Amino acid sequence: MTSPLRKLETCFSPALYEPELHEGAIVVVIDILRASSAICTAFANGAKAIIPVSGVDEARDYKSKGYLVAAERDGFVLDFADFGNSPFNFTTERVKDKTIVYSTTNGTGIINLASSAYSIAVGSFLNIDALFKWLTGQEKNVMLFCAGWKNRFNLEDTIFAGALAEKLLQTGYYSTMCDSTLAAVDLWSVAKPDIRAYIEKAAQRTRLRDKKLDDCIDFCLTSGFTERIPVMKNGQLVSLTE
Amino acid sequence: MTSPLRKLETCFSPALYEPELHEGAIVVVIDILRASSAICTAFANGAKAIIPVSGVDEARDYKSKGYLVAAERDGFVLDFADFGNSPFNFTTERVKDKTIVYSTTNGTGIINLASSAYSIAVGSFLNIDALFKWLTGQEKNVMLFCAGWKNRFNLEDTIFAGALAEKLLQTGYYSTMCDSTLAAVDLWSVAKPDIRAYIEKAAQRTRLRDKKLDDCIDFCLTSGFTERIPVMKNGQLVSLTE
Repeated sequence: MTSPLRKLETCFSPALYEPELHEGAIVVVIDILRASSAICTAFANGAKAIIPVSGVDEARDYKSKGYLVAAERDGFVLDFADFGNSPFNFTTERVKDKTIVYSTTNGTGIINLASSAYSIAVGSFLNIDALFKWLTGQEKNVMLFCAGWKNRFNLEDTIFAGALAEKLLQTGYYSTMCDSTLAAVDLWSVAKPDIRAYIEKAAQRTRLRDKKLDDCIDFCLTSGFTERIPVMKNGQLVSLTE
Repeated sequence: MTSPLRKLETCFSPALYEPELHEGAIVVVIDILRASSAICTAFANGAKAIIPVSGVDEARDYKSKGYLVAAERDGFVLDFADFGNSPFNFTTERVKDKTIVYSTTNGTGIINLASSAYSIAVGSFLNIDALFKWLTGQEKNVMLFCAGWKNRFNLEDTIFAGALAEKLLQTGYYSTMCDSTLAAVDLWSVAKPDIRAYIEKAAQRTRLRDKKLDDCIDFCLTSGFTERIPVMKNGQLVSLTE
């Protein structure tokens, strides 16, 4: 089977996103430390749906309606929340068959920005293999949308975009005229021999370590943990595969 | 002599610039293809001053006042202008002792954005050695500000930022907690063995080739062409050194 050539693009920050260019594309939202890794973990452990929210008040409202809520600010679990934002909190015991509200400023922001796209999927190292396989089966352009940190470029989201872009470009189905994609692939080539050592130098790594929230980083850099692909459907994230 | 540790940061796009964070810094403005390379060439060839302007109308007004004007749009020299924006147009015969108006949308934009900084200097491969030497003699933080292209990340500005950042970090006078700087240095490490081949794949390279404006690219990637460092003084660029 030959496929028409699809466009592959990468965006390093919400401040650089151009929604009108990606209306027909599948947008992969990426926030490796830690929202997209936590969301993939939740579905791996049987969550039914995740409602991403940006604000604390919105999360509190959901809690009062009886939802399970994951919410923290500056490393502290908020008093009304059931647990914090680390992937390790989304255990099978807690999340199986549940709808969970996940408070994430960066993650919710980029999902909203991408709302005019054909489809929105959540990407992390944990589901990279399944995501890659699914994307290649779709006849769609792909936009790799990095959440960054407070609108800034970050290394961990970029090397994930590079890892996925490298695989997609190797299929021959995709082409890119996007310098961000080329840069991401090259940074991935530098990081690949030892991604844990590479991420040691990233700013978010240091921020999480300072707050003692860095215990999940090794896990967030692990490939092939789950076949689940979270996608947006009617304002909620659900798993594409059972 | 030991120096206090200075901060080194990099910004990949005007859309990501945070002026309030760089008020005490020297901002190096970077638009390798072609504004910052053309400006460095003009001073190498004896220009007295350069007035960067963003709009065609502004450039036309200056022309009517008798200034020498370099201006083009989409690869065509504007009818009222004296010549176009390529570094090769800034010959000694044309520019020696002259004040030149240079029309550059990207370049003017980032100079305006950086106006609250301690100082603004123009950087390109052509003056990288002199610029490096001068920066290390200043007790200031440094922000490497890439013009990009229409607010997008680009490879040529980034690898220049990486080349300069690598040299600055090696002195031990600078430290960085900025993922953009770390990425730029890593991309430079990939590009360095053959920067001309590396820039072949960049999007702006393709755009210039399509418009047959790519004859200056080899020149723009040449290090050590001039000792001149263009800096902003009273709304004009002048050479720091005679």
